[in-house]
Amino acid sequence: MCRWLAYSGTPLLLETILYRPAHSLIDQSLHSRLGVETTNGDGFGIGWYAREPDLTTPAVVRDVGPAWNNRNLREIAGHVRSRLFFAHIRASTGTAVQQTNSHPFRHDRWMWMHNGAIADFHLLRRELCVAVDPSLFADIEGSTDSEVMFYLALTFGLEDDPPGAVARMAATVERVGRAHGVDAPLQMTIATTDGTDVWAFRYASAGTARSLFYSSRVDSLRALHPDMSFLRELSEETRLVVSEPLGDLPGAWHAVPEHTYGVVRADGADELFPFAPAP
Amino acid sequence: MCRWLAYSGTPLLLETILYRPAHSLIDQSLHSRLGVETTNGDGFGIGWYAREPDLTTPAVVRDVGPAWNNRNLREIAGHVRSRLFFAHIRASTGTAVQQTNSHPFRHDRWMWMHNGAIADFHLLRRELCVAVDPSLFADIEGSTDSEVMFYLALTFGLEDDPPGAVARMAATVERVGRAHGVDAPLQMTIATTDGTDVWAFRYASAGTARSLFYSSRVDSLRALHPDMSFLRELSEETRLVVSEPLGDLPGAWHAVPEHTYGVVRADGADELFPFAPAP
Amino acid sequence: MCRWLAYSGTPLLLETILYRPAHSLIDQSLHSRLGVETTNGDGFGIGWYAREPDLTTPAVVRDVGPAWNNRNLREIAGHVRSRLFFAHIRASTGTAVQQTNSHPFRHDRWMWMHNGAIADFHLLRRELCVAVDPSLFADIEGSTDSEVMFYLALTFGLEDDPPGAVARMAATVERVGRAHGVDAPLQMTIATTDGTDVWAFRYASAGTARSLFYSSRVDSLRALHPDMSFLRELSEETRLVVSEPLGDLPGAWHAVPEHTYGVVRADGADELFPFAPAP
Amino acid sequence: MCRWLAYSGTPLLLETILYRPAHSLIDQSLHSRLGVETTNGDGFGIGWYAREPDLTTPAVVRDVGPAWNNRNLREIAGHVRSRLFFAHIRASTGTAVQQTNSHPFRHDRWMWMHNGAIADFHLLRRELCVAVDPSLFADIEGSTDSEVMFYLALTFGLEDDPPGAVARMAATVERVGRAHGVDAPLQMTIATTDGTDVWAFRYASAGTARSLFYSSRVDSLRALHPDMSFLRELSEETRLVVSEPLGDLPGAWHAVPEHTYGVVRADGADELFPFAPAP
Repeated sequence: MCRWLAYSGTPLLLETILYRPAHSLIDQSLHSRLGVETTNGDGFGIGWYAREPDLTTPAVVRDVGPAWNNRNLREIAGHVRSRLFFAHIRASTGTAVQQTNSHPFRHDRWMWMHNGAIADFHLLRRELCVAVDPSLFADIEGSTDSEVMFYLALTFGLEDDPPGAVARMAATVERVGRAHGVDAPLQMTIATTDGTDVWAFRYASAGTARSLFYSSRVDSLRALHPDMSFLRELSEETRLVVSEPLGDLPGAWHAVPEHTYGVVRADGADELFPFAPAP
Repeated sequence: MCRWLAYSGTPLLLETILYRPAHSLIDQSLHSRLGVETTNGDGFGIGWYAREPDLTTPAVVRDVGPAWNNRNLREIAGHVRSRLFFAHIRASTGTAVQQTNSHPFRHDRWMWMHNGAIADFHLLRRELCVAVDPSLFADIEGSTDSEVMFYLALTFGLEDDPPGAVARMAATVERVGRAHGVDAPLQMTIATTDGTDVWAFRYASAGTARSLFYSSRVDSLRALHPDMSFLRELSEETRLVVSEPLGDLPGAWHAVPEHTYGVVRADGADELFPFAPAP
Repeated sequence: MCRWLAYSGTPLLLETILYRPAHSLIDQSLHSRLGVETTNGDGFGIGWYAREPDLTTPAVVRDVGPAWNNRNLREIAGHVRSRLFFAHIRASTGTAVQQTNSHPFRHDRWMWMHNGAIADFHLLRRELCVAVDPSLFADIEGSTDSEVMFYLALTFGLEDDPPGAVARMAATVERVGRAHGVDAPLQMTIATTDGTDVWAFRYASAGTARSLFYSSRVDSLRALHPDMSFLRELSEETRLVVSEPLGDLPGAWHAVPEHTYGVVRADGADELFPFAPAP
Repeated sequence: MCRWLAYSGTPLLLETILYRPAHSLIDQSLHSRLGVETTNGDGFGIGWYAREPDLTTPAVVRDVGPAWNNRNLREIAGHVRSRLFFAHIRASTGTAVQQTNSHPFRHDRWMWMHNGAIADFHLLRRELCVAVDPSLFADIEGSTDSEVMFYLALTFGLEDDPPGAVARMAATVERVGRAHGVDAPLQMTIATTDGTDVWAFRYASAGTARSLFYSSRVDSLRALHPDMSFLRELSEETRLVVSEPLGDLPGAWHAVPEHTYGVVRADGADELFPFAPAP
């Protein structure tokens, strides 16, 4: 189980989002409220797009060890500004704690991060790996289900049709899982981006999916909280998608419904759609 | 805040004590019940004496990162047997997470580990360091209060008179603290050993000291729990001193009273004495 | 490129072999003479069998970073005695520096380590992984060619017939390599053990294979160097197999011929045999 | 022994200087030509000033392990642009490999890095530490001579008069060294900056000081090499100071004379002056 955060909007120092909020992602690394485990100390990662238009590939900095005591993370967060960044804290369920198992994962200008699990992944791993496009297979570096899900989505056309590719990935996990006698193979909340738009998915084969929230429109937040100067610095199109709210600001957070995905466009347009696996 | 464990008795695989109990030290690294923080994920260490009589200096293996996901710790614990070992998990209160700040500390054949804090250590650090014997000063490698306490105790004769040296160390911390306007400078539970005997101290300048427990005599435990085969493998002189009990076995654990130290001899003799700082 | 060492014989502190010799493995981590690179600083590992008969599985301690400055390695080496151990220092050729890519690899009571490379492994990786027994596939944790070679050998019967299994593994690499247009797919020096016997292989598809040496019989060394007290402490059956000699003692080291494997039995018997890939 | 690099000039991606040159600092981490050791694999660090005027404190990212295989360093270097940055690769001479011993060191908006050594530092450490301003002492986090030199320079007025403060620091080391019978206590090449100007010092108590070079004026380099497009992108005021040249470009590098310091101003003005310890 993990926690993650996707930010899109006014270019901000990463620390504004990662460290400043009352229940920031760094606080969640020690004291998660909604996660299966309260501690997420098995590695972390951040990925950000630089403002320079020639740098289309995001920087991805990942490490082992907890985020809460990592000084380099704090240094970077205090000196790097970005209009679009991902952050992830990991709670391993047994796979190795190593840099290549920390999120976000990257392929060219795409990033991917995940909270959830493929049930009995050990049983399904080989067949899922074999379903990855042979030209992509050798780029898999770690041993997590999350990375294999990313490579499956790339195999199924993530770069052209993100919702379709994720639906096909989910259908593949469902199919392979059930073929191996796994009843409810998939629990997932995923964020992915090409550096312009952000897609976020919430889905579970059965039962309640992992929690997922998105932030309110900045203009409505300003109307609710006219005294919060911080909100005046944010542009209209600023949006956050998070595993759990970063604080208790009334009106700030909305649960993403189950079996749903949302997209946040660079221009601030956003929309929710139903999500279902589709072969 | 930290948690620690000192074992003396029948030579055992370290994992028997570190991993097997229901509320083992490894479990405490994620779910401490009695500590100030529930998570102790900022480094760990183990120190053990080999059985060979020519190896009088203990092996000390320390690392950064949490104990709960460290594979090397598990490997060592599953293959090394010792009659006397220390283990420690760290929760930093701000000082760097680095190997030289992880416990136990070692000097020749002595080991030292600590749970607690010198209040306002930042303010007192220089004067306490200056009080360390000049011939020992250059061996200080880290930045913790715990290591400075060790070097002060060595300065004050730890190798000849452990209770006296710790009393003088505590008195020095009290004196320097109060000279800098710190009301209650010291909170400590300390274990130290020369490879034969183990001394454990519980003390606070004011208020309740950090928790500390010792295990019951093995013969009385056997009488209480005749069905536990594990107890039949332990010799009479086996003893544990721990920050918090490793499980809920009735009759197994006794709190060390406040302002008290205890000694566990290699032959199983043990005794409690009052403790007070003494200049 | 890497360097490795396999020891079988009189139970010794690991440091006797790892640190004491003039050109020890630790020295080779900074100053390899025969390797492709002089520096082997991309991780290391040791694996040893405990003397207790109930502990048939070896302890494997691996880490990232250089061996030369690793304090935990020195601590373990100074306090652990073993009659059979492996040690390996890694020079990555691009794959991630992570614990699961450090050698030795372990499966039950078997260990495996490697110096060499599969040419164009990126191109061949998928087909080689698919050739691994499906029941073993999910245990692959890292991204090296060396680990895949181990799982192929396990697939082909390593536990029953080590030389035959390694020959089949090599033939598979040759076949898959040539099918992908790779002329000389394999360069390997491998050591493997079940905790009793040690097998070492030297082979290259073309050209000169990586260097490999074995030590002389202890009795003949004693005759050559009657003044070396160290040799008097070793039993007759003691043997080392190494990537490069640990020093310049005349008469101490013999090159393993090309296309050859050797076996060192627990009772000191040893023999060399020709080696060739065999489908 | 270490290697370092200070850059001031046209805002560049760090990788332009750290990775691209033929004999870049990263290459020097494996293959130093002029250093005492060819390998500098015991940690590294970078420190950069952001372009935003409100961020006057530099970001400092330091890690253990070699620079040559560090992926996070490459990520940051490929996505962060700076007009003034330091980079350092470390070869420990025995002190612990830990983040707080990696350079550059920081105090407010000042950075400091060093190549060289205080002879018999173990002997002099206490007296040098005691000479540090008591209000600064508690900020010392590591165990290197380099950090103590920084805190001594801060004690002696680095923020007001860098050359004077470094001269007083050097005089203190000379005095304390000779009082302890150390003949030639100091070997140093130091770079320090306040985020605007850069000062670099080359000095040894006796014998030849560690190597130090500065780059030629960009306009003269352009005249020499009219075909190098890279040079056309650099502004006139761009300057590098390095432990050893980053390549073999004729006319590009000048040795800093012995017992000399230089200053590079933000506007490109630069000058060399004689340097001598001064109490």
